[in-house]
Amino acid sequence: MSLNTYGHLFRVTTWGESHGPAIGATVDGCPPGVALIESDLQGWLDKRKPGQNKYTTQRREADAVEILSGTFEGKTTGTPIQLMIRNTDQRSKDYGDIAEKFRPGHADITYWQKYGIRDYRGGGRSSARETATRVAAGGVARAALDRLAPGVKITGYLVAMGEHEIDRNRFDWDQIEQNPFWAPDAQAAENWAIYLDGLRKSGSSVGAIIEVTIRGCPAGLGAPVYGKLDTDLAAAMMSINAVKGVEIGEGMAAARLTGEANADEISMGENGPEYSSNHAGGILGGISTGQDIIVRFAVKPTSSILTPRKTITKSGEATEIITKGRHDPCVGIRAVPVAEAMAATVILDHLLLDRAQTGGTRGAIG
Amino acid sequence: MSLNTYGHLFRVTTWGESHGPAIGATVDGCPPGVALIESDLQGWLDKRKPGQNKYTTQRREADAVEILSGTFEGKTTGTPIQLMIRNTDQRSKDYGDIAEKFRPGHADITYWQKYGIRDYRGGGRSSARETATRVAAGGVARAALDRLAPGVKITGYLVAMGEHEIDRNRFDWDQIEQNPFWAPDAQAAENWAIYLDGLRKSGSSVGAIIEVTIRGCPAGLGAPVYGKLDTDLAAAMMSINAVKGVEIGEGMAAARLTGEANADEISMGENGPEYSSNHAGGILGGISTGQDIIVRFAVKPTSSILTPRKTITKSGEATEIITKGRHDPCVGIRAVPVAEAMAATVILDHLLLDRAQTGGTRGAIG
Amino acid sequence: MSLNTYGHLFRVTTWGESHGPAIGATVDGCPPGVALIESDLQGWLDKRKPGQNKYTTQRREADAVEILSGTFEGKTTGTPIQLMIRNTDQRSKDYGDIAEKFRPGHADITYWQKYGIRDYRGGGRSSARETATRVAAGGVARAALDRLAPGVKITGYLVAMGEHEIDRNRFDWDQIEQNPFWAPDAQAAENWAIYLDGLRKSGSSVGAIIEVTIRGCPAGLGAPVYGKLDTDLAAAMMSINAVKGVEIGEGMAAARLTGEANADEISMGENGPEYSSNHAGGILGGISTGQDIIVRFAVKPTSSILTPRKTITKSGEATEIITKGRHDPCVGIRAVPVAEAMAATVILDHLLLDRAQTGGTRGAIG
Amino acid sequence: MSLNTYGHLFRVTTWGESHGPAIGATVDGCPPGVALIESDLQGWLDKRKPGQNKYTTQRREADAVEILSGTFEGKTTGTPIQLMIRNTDQRSKDYGDIAEKFRPGHADITYWQKYGIRDYRGGGRSSARETATRVAAGGVARAALDRLAPGVKITGYLVAMGEHEIDRNRFDWDQIEQNPFWAPDAQAAENWAIYLDGLRKSGSSVGAIIEVTIRGCPAGLGAPVYGKLDTDLAAAMMSINAVKGVEIGEGMAAARLTGEANADEISMGENGPEYSSNHAGGILGGISTGQDIIVRFAVKPTSSILTPRKTITKSGEATEIITKGRHDPCVGIRAVPVAEAMAATVILDHLLLDRAQTGGTRGAIG
Repeated sequence: MSLNTYGHLFRVTTWGESHGPAIGATVDGCPPGVALIESDLQGWLDKRKPGQNKYTTQRREADAVEILSGTFEGKTTGTPIQLMIRNTDQRSKDYGDIAEKFRPGHADITYWQKYGIRDYRGGGRSSARETATRVAAGGVARAALDRLAPGVKITGYLVAMGEHEIDRNRFDWDQIEQNPFWAPDAQAAENWAIYLDGLRKSGSSVGAIIEVTIRGCPAGLGAPVYGKLDTDLAAAMMSINAVKGVEIGEGMAAARLTGEANADEISMGENGPEYSSNHAGGILGGISTGQDIIVRFAVKPTSSILTPRKTITKSGEATEIITKGRHDPCVGIRAVPVAEAMAATVILDHLLLDRAQTGGTRGAIG
Repeated sequence: MSLNTYGHLFRVTTWGESHGPAIGATVDGCPPGVALIESDLQGWLDKRKPGQNKYTTQRREADAVEILSGTFEGKTTGTPIQLMIRNTDQRSKDYGDIAEKFRPGHADITYWQKYGIRDYRGGGRSSARETATRVAAGGVARAALDRLAPGVKITGYLVAMGEHEIDRNRFDWDQIEQNPFWAPDAQAAENWAIYLDGLRKSGSSVGAIIEVTIRGCPAGLGAPVYGKLDTDLAAAMMSINAVKGVEIGEGMAAARLTGEANADEISMGENGPEYSSNHAGGILGGISTGQDIIVRFAVKPTSSILTPRKTITKSGEATEIITKGRHDPCVGIRAVPVAEAMAATVILDHLLLDRAQTGGTRGAIG
Repeated sequence: MSLNTYGHLFRVTTWGESHGPAIGATVDGCPPGVALIESDLQGWLDKRKPGQNKYTTQRREADAVEILSGTFEGKTTGTPIQLMIRNTDQRSKDYGDIAEKFRPGHADITYWQKYGIRDYRGGGRSSARETATRVAAGGVARAALDRLAPGVKITGYLVAMGEHEIDRNRFDWDQIEQNPFWAPDAQAAENWAIYLDGLRKSGSSVGAIIEVTIRGCPAGLGAPVYGKLDTDLAAAMMSINAVKGVEIGEGMAAARLTGEANADEISMGENGPEYSSNHAGGILGGISTGQDIIVRFAVKPTSSILTPRKTITKSGEATEIITKGRHDPCVGIRAVPVAEAMAATVILDHLLLDRAQTGGTRGAIG
Repeated sequence: MSLNTYGHLFRVTTWGESHGPAIGATVDGCPPGVALIESDLQGWLDKRKPGQNKYTTQRREADAVEILSGTFEGKTTGTPIQLMIRNTDQRSKDYGDIAEKFRPGHADITYWQKYGIRDYRGGGRSSARETATRVAAGGVARAALDRLAPGVKITGYLVAMGEHEIDRNRFDWDQIEQNPFWAPDAQAAENWAIYLDGLRKSGSSVGAIIEVTIRGCPAGLGAPVYGKLDTDLAAAMMSINAVKGVEIGEGMAAARLTGEANADEISMGENGPEYSSNHAGGILGGISTGQDIIVRFAVKPTSSILTPRKTITKSGEATEIITKGRHDPCVGIRAVPVAEAMAATVILDHLLLDRAQTGGTRGAIG
């Protein structure tokens, strides 16, 4: 990843801030001939769009994406695809307080320390708004995957909100789209609704854990060391703002296991190798096994809360700050479509990398 | 990161397998004029070297590093530095079993599925042996940091072995080098010694959690989105073999906090901003704050165990396998110097990136 | 360079086709705090703009650039700068002929062979229109150079049109902006006017040689082998459409010289080393000497001519084609501001690279 | 290209100086399963090896290449291939003069100005010795091409030595390996032998022009703008030391042509499109046409000559210098195998890039 670009061959460069005229992504390296029109992308953007229910920020953005280049007669041409989303709700307000004070937990102070200049009207590149462009780019990746590896299915969902986790015994894929939290557990969703409403009313916020499962990924994607599939997935998730931890398969809990408990035993199935378990999360030695790939990450609570916090001004004086405004009480919810998009991008990118090096030919088993 | 290279400007390309004549790293982009001789690197390699006590593999390697290029009269010249380590203990044995069977939890099967060819004599690039080259390269990064940012101090240590965690109340920096586990808690080290000895004798293995603290890192390193300092640290740690999870600051536990609990309040100290806590782990919006940077990661248990596991052969037949040989009962121990090396490389790389873009000039506070 | 991105640290990604709604460039890695408003860029774009006189295509484009991100209150923030130029003159016409036939000398046939899809309404990414985005990005590079290395002055000019060369004895910097050909020789400009008018009327076209001189570049930029300053300058120029050759200093003529004739002897001047001549073109061993850097390149004649040429259709049938439309009789003229922009980008990029690795400290002489 | 690495997917990182213990190249991204043993590479190295006749430097190097990693049982494994060549003829001598004085036309002065440190015993990375590692890496590329695109044939040859050019009417492929100058014209070779012997005896040197023809390259490799096949070929050639100009097809002479003269008319042949001529040099819009690809470049005369030249010392004092030692009177001769190697690397790299993006599927014609 360079400063604002990710991907080896399917390369996405994003640009724009929350308070400028527009944000966008340039998608380079997309295979030609992929069916792609704006409405293919809009569905994904609508999943992430703010203001859809009382659990997300009330900022209202149409998040309408425009394809400015790279397609012809509804198909990609192999040239860079520019995806632009205009900002429509840059509500004017008095920024005086934020302009002079650093909000604890925000990038305000580090931006200032690094660049010596800062657009104090919003979070700049660190704004959650930037993630809309990732979702648009991820939509292109999904369209390309549909053509190159039609069996791949990428699904994100919340597995914990604050201290409240889902019950894996109630896991139900069909529930995920049935509640505003992308919860695969109907009971958890009900509990979270009450819990989050309380937090919202008190002007507080809370963190969350999101899991993304990639089903149908072919074996053989990735590489043994720095180009590991899990390295790129980890970097992709960690690059999302407010993410503080990333796990593959067992994740941090792998530390607690013995070798016997951790080993996923192998047997021969009708369609190739099968595994007795999936502690590995679908990746061995940096390379996909063909099992479900499981990525999990934690999003910290929004720092924008109504309780006053101690801070300093640019001139170094002690003060307090309250962050009013339109914020998400659990910003992790809206991270779900973002994480799906990042996962789609990584999988496609590695599919192309693998096609380049091996031609997609596999060592046969059996 | 490309397949076998990491770093943006300070770029390390590693090569070699456990059963070839040598392994090595090419370090490109090092500043000129840095004092560097082989013995500067050897100390770090000795930390990682196997066979030093009964808790690590009994493979005996001198791990003697040779500098083949890039220095003159004891100083770096700014040209690529080749670091070569000869393999000396490639014990001949009967590989027949491993050649035909896939070891569960190893990269054997995915290597085969991806490349259709595999050096069955060892773990290839996925062998822990590869990490020696990272340690050597990290030694170069440390030498450069000594010159460019002399206050930076990078220290790794184990915080958990299996289910046994250290007690943070007993945390003592001086203990870390006093026990074979790099434990900052003397009591934990004693307990782990007994615990691991039992595992070793039974031919089992266990995972571990390693933490790296970077003290004295200047504020302003990193970037807001894909070039985040935490993105690169996460990728660096996840690229180490057997790592399944990475955390910055609060890590996965950040999901459990409320916004009030998570906010690190800011005050003005004598040498700049100070913080009431460090939930952020020293990084806000992808950019270092000047606080301690805290990275944590989990290493899974070695898959090489004496208990037979079910698996298949290349021809797809069901079988069982026992992995004999010289393996680490807790490979996480030897990951400590590797993680320090990776951290040093990332910090130096971002120092150079920041110097390029901003010239190192900072927005003043106060 | 990746497919649509150039630069190591100052990275420009361009997008857009001649017949879409807009084209643009994303400029990443720009230092913060550089004064930059749209009118700073517009001047450079106006130099390249078509339709300004009878010697260039009559396509009329305002080429008005919009800065959509990356600046705040008239200064760069260090985040990606999006430069968008709307296409305004996409004249509707009957493309039937071009849609089915491949124009000799155009990218039509190779686009088709590579991608299997092609926007036949224009040259796609191979259109000269793409170069407007380079000019805009080059304007950002110039603004940054003004701050970081204020002595750098980059000037392009035509030294040959077809078989008609300038007379170096009449070389006059002040003439360059006085004629529509950027000729440093007033007499040559007069002759070219007559010559080109004839070509234009007959529907023919001709090639040209452009030279760019970079004055005031500090010594020490570049690197010895693949990161040579001349490598990057050569790639930058060769990446401009229709360029077929690139030279540094003596260029191809260096082959004719003996070692005695080619050696630029060194003496000590008041401000450092001076040279008796500049056969090297300001670059020795890939690194700038502090002398004028001289780059030269040849642009082939536009393939769009009124004389019928033999070709084939997509179905492989023999046919003929005439390329009507609004084309430049000597497209090399408009390559001048493009080449200046590319040179500015390369110099700034190497200035940042050098600042990263060496801190800009130089080995002293004398 | 980064400082010491070239290639997008087939990535070569070279290291080492003329006066260290060894030089080498790490080849990353090679397809697995390619037959490769040391003797496959040695043949190419022997072509470049010095001391083979009186027309090249009398430095004696075995240039024996060792494969230290990345192959197993005579085939590539898909992991990095380390190619090491030991330096064997580092003749001890008194370097006092060179240590203090800058040789005109050498990188001595710019190295010093950039890095402030310099191994004065040789040319460092700018030594022609570095090119041996490119030749070794090019051998790997050729082996991979033999498997992926067996029809590709890459041949370099001298077309001019000083002012003496070959006669294209006498061009004979079979002559190239029959004389020490890789001349495709027997008569020219005879003339050059006499001419160069005179230069050698007088301690002088002269430049040369080398041409590389790539036959059998499939259509469709490359990309329209920055990833142009000609951009990468130009960069590859310009990265060779002492190169001052690069041409594709007509090259600089394209400037002299009219559109009518330059157009390569298209007809339909039995195996696809055919062209009436090849002014384009096999590349249109950055993408290969399937015709022969023609690259040409000029090598300046060696600066190491016996005639005294004026220069300065590190302390800035005026002096003179004679470069004694073992130097090539026409270093361009030994650039032939280097250029072939670079061409092989670029073609393979673009073959992999194309396979990644398009899967190698082509738009059909006819």
